[in-house]
Amino acid sequence: MPQRPPQRPLPSRPLHGGDPSVLRRLNSAATLRALRDGGECTLSELARRVGLSRPTTEGVLGELIDRGLAGQDAPRPGTGLGRPARRYRFRAEAGHALGIDIDAHRVRLVVADLTGAVAGGHRADLDVQAPPGERIAAVRASVRTCLAATGVERRSLWAVAAGTPGVVAPDGTVTSCTVVPGWEGVRLARELGRSFSCPVLVENDANLAAMAERWRGAARDADDVVCVHAGLHTGMGALIGGRLHRGRWGAAGEIGMLPEMGLRDTTAALITGTDVDPEAASTALAGLASAGGGSGGPALDHAERVLEAAGWGAAEATAVVERLAARMARGVAAMALALDPEMIVVGGPLVRAGDLLVSELRRRVRPLCLSPVRIEASELGDEAVGLGAVRLALDRIDEDLFRVDRPSDPSDPSGPGASDLSESGEVRQA
Amino acid sequence: MPQRPPQRPLPSRPLHGGDPSVLRRLNSAATLRALRDGGECTLSELARRVGLSRPTTEGVLGELIDRGLAGQDAPRPGTGLGRPARRYRFRAEAGHALGIDIDAHRVRLVVADLTGAVAGGHRADLDVQAPPGERIAAVRASVRTCLAATGVERRSLWAVAAGTPGVVAPDGTVTSCTVVPGWEGVRLARELGRSFSCPVLVENDANLAAMAERWRGAARDADDVVCVHAGLHTGMGALIGGRLHRGRWGAAGEIGMLPEMGLRDTTAALITGTDVDPEAASTALAGLASAGGGSGGPALDHAERVLEAAGWGAAEATAVVERLAARMARGVAAMALALDPEMIVVGGPLVRAGDLLVSELRRRVRPLCLSPVRIEASELGDEAVGLGAVRLALDRIDEDLFRVDRPSDPSDPSGPGASDLSESGEVRQA
Repeated sequence: MPQRPPQRPLPSRPLHGGDPSVLRRLNSAATLRALRDGGECTLSELARRVGLSRPTTEGVLGELIDRGLAGQDAPRPGTGLGRPARRYRFRAEAGHALGIDIDAHRVRLVVADLTGAVAGGHRADLDVQAPPGERIAAVRASVRTCLAATGVERRSLWAVAAGTPGVVAPDGTVTSCTVVPGWEGVRLARELGRSFSCPVLVENDANLAAMAERWRGAARDADDVVCVHAGLHTGMGALIGGRLHRGRWGAAGEIGMLPEMGLRDTTAALITGTDVDPEAASTALAGLASAGGGSGGPALDHAERVLEAAGWGAAEATAVVERLAARMARGVAAMALALDPEMIVVGGPLVRAGDLLVSELRRRVRPLCLSPVRIEASELGDEAVGLGAVRLALDRIDEDLFRVDRPSDPSDPSGPGASDLSESGEVRQA
Repeated sequence: MPQRPPQRPLPSRPLHGGDPSVLRRLNSAATLRALRDGGECTLSELARRVGLSRPTTEGVLGELIDRGLAGQDAPRPGTGLGRPARRYRFRAEAGHALGIDIDAHRVRLVVADLTGAVAGGHRADLDVQAPPGERIAAVRASVRTCLAATGVERRSLWAVAAGTPGVVAPDGTVTSCTVVPGWEGVRLARELGRSFSCPVLVENDANLAAMAERWRGAARDADDVVCVHAGLHTGMGALIGGRLHRGRWGAAGEIGMLPEMGLRDTTAALITGTDVDPEAASTALAGLASAGGGSGGPALDHAERVLEAAGWGAAEATAVVERLAARMARGVAAMALALDPEMIVVGGPLVRAGDLLVSELRRRVRPLCLSPVRIEASELGDEAVGLGAVRLALDRIDEDLFRVDRPSDPSDPSGPGASDLSESGEVRQA
């Protein structure tokens, strides 16, 4: 039997049954969760699911309907005598989460409803050389286009999260970024926040990719996950106990800072010992890193095409990927040794270089580790960061929706604009 | 405002007010906690503290008294008219936790009551070359001596935890250990468990040192802590969100497996470039590592004495410690970069080599990191591992004492013998 502490410890301020408002919040949260996770049902079914009396459930349900969180569906045609029972459902469309992936060369947006069902998205190119103001203006324009295209109103957004390369401080400032010129020091959460009345969170892209892999990718059901986001520089994100581990300054996973870890300056690494022109290689790898086109199949073809354009043949492209894996292995192993995760997911632009990168990493990382580490390829392609951003935004929303252990508190340290939702009154506990 | 998720998420199975047994458990846990953490008080004071009615509090208190967890003290002499009110207190002596530090050369025991107040301890030498059976027999003998000396009965032990060098699997087996010959493969939790009827947990020593530093050492109030346990080999333990991070196979923190991290074979490192005889250096460092004598003061003296015996002068001893720090810096930095902790605490046998090691590590680690990492010396000396073991055992006890979100469950994955406590009925929730 594992000795790990239970994933979900007791709340810090003890609950007790003597406070009626605590009971009301417990009942409301339990009912809302049962309705959301269990699907549409009648009042009696819901009461059974939650374990409350029918009258209590009816009271709580009325409150949820008033708050716009529950709705009544047309009764199904009766199968027997008597009036068919009314059916109730969670109103997933009551609010939305917006995820934004602000990459060096591209912005990708995903809008989802409160159950995480994707309502739509949008992509646009970004000029990596453009000054921060222009990049942010381009992101804002993309948000407008995305909302118009999906028919989601801006005030229906309950939380927004954005991913970026680099280290992101707890206040949403990009404190370090080697990939986008001028991006360092940008107060991204504050800048983006001007466009929204809901909380806006900013997070490192590898961290969001890790959240996405656990939500809908290769790391479903794993609690301790390291996500390797392989690109021109390789970042890493970690989930511990199912939760993102950001670190004190938002810099967790930056083990690539040590040059011997082999996670930085991939371009330089790849051309060592080849006849390839550095300039051409850099262009080719930027092409690899920025190429659109989702998570499609045996993508070594694609890598070959790109690398070929830079003067590499197919055999040399393979050799290059092997060399890349050899170079990255120590950094990936160091992270595996530091955290001993359940699994490592390898994603990011360079994973379109095909399964070869993942299988080479397996071959080279395992002998360096003490435990039999599991290494898998991402299943999410270039949607990982955007989806992870949606998940982060939804977590922010859920925090308020299902808060039972304490009332909403403006000094709550869970994020910039943390009090916005409760100020709006929309999702405040009754 | 930091974006970190709240430390204590909601319980996975939603609580609701419809289940009277949940209410009873909430009330019982809240009352017990108020009594333990708030100190002796009258019934009215307790009711006020918990926020329950006087009759409800009285009922819960009666139950706690029946379970041996609360006691009634002699009333204080009245200051006015009327009978003085009875006073109640948490019975810290109702149970005890035993912590065992099984080092290569020594076993150290600490017994504490349910509030963690140390009731006593014991130490004895171990022969590092003795076969596992003999070592375990010696530990058992020490436990007997310790219990006899402290007057604590064996059946009063509610949980036992032991620390050991090496990687410890979730089932308490030592799966890897380079320091003690023959120790690898020993099912330590099971072997020790034969001597006790309560849960017995086994944990890596650096992990326990980290727990101790947060409980009573240099890392009080820090949630994300890396503890560097510097000895002949240097291990590392990490707390994340205030909880020990063990990893999937119990191997988290073993970044020293990569030779370039400079955390292994300290002896070899220290003598490189000196005229010192390897044999003598090894003896000297083993002496440093096994020397008793607590956490005393400016211990460079001690290091000097030991190193002098191996043929080093004082100046050379200083140079050796500087060289050691230079060697360890990359490994410590890698862990800091991987986790971005709030602080790093440097402890373990070699820290008796004085503050010099810590200040040299500061000087060399910081330039390698992205964030301004805080590095401090341990305040606990050679008691860290034993105290950490007590903390681990107390956490195991608290888990049962304050469990409200679900009844005790034999399939509970919180540790070997996890069901023992509930079987005894002593701390089972009413």
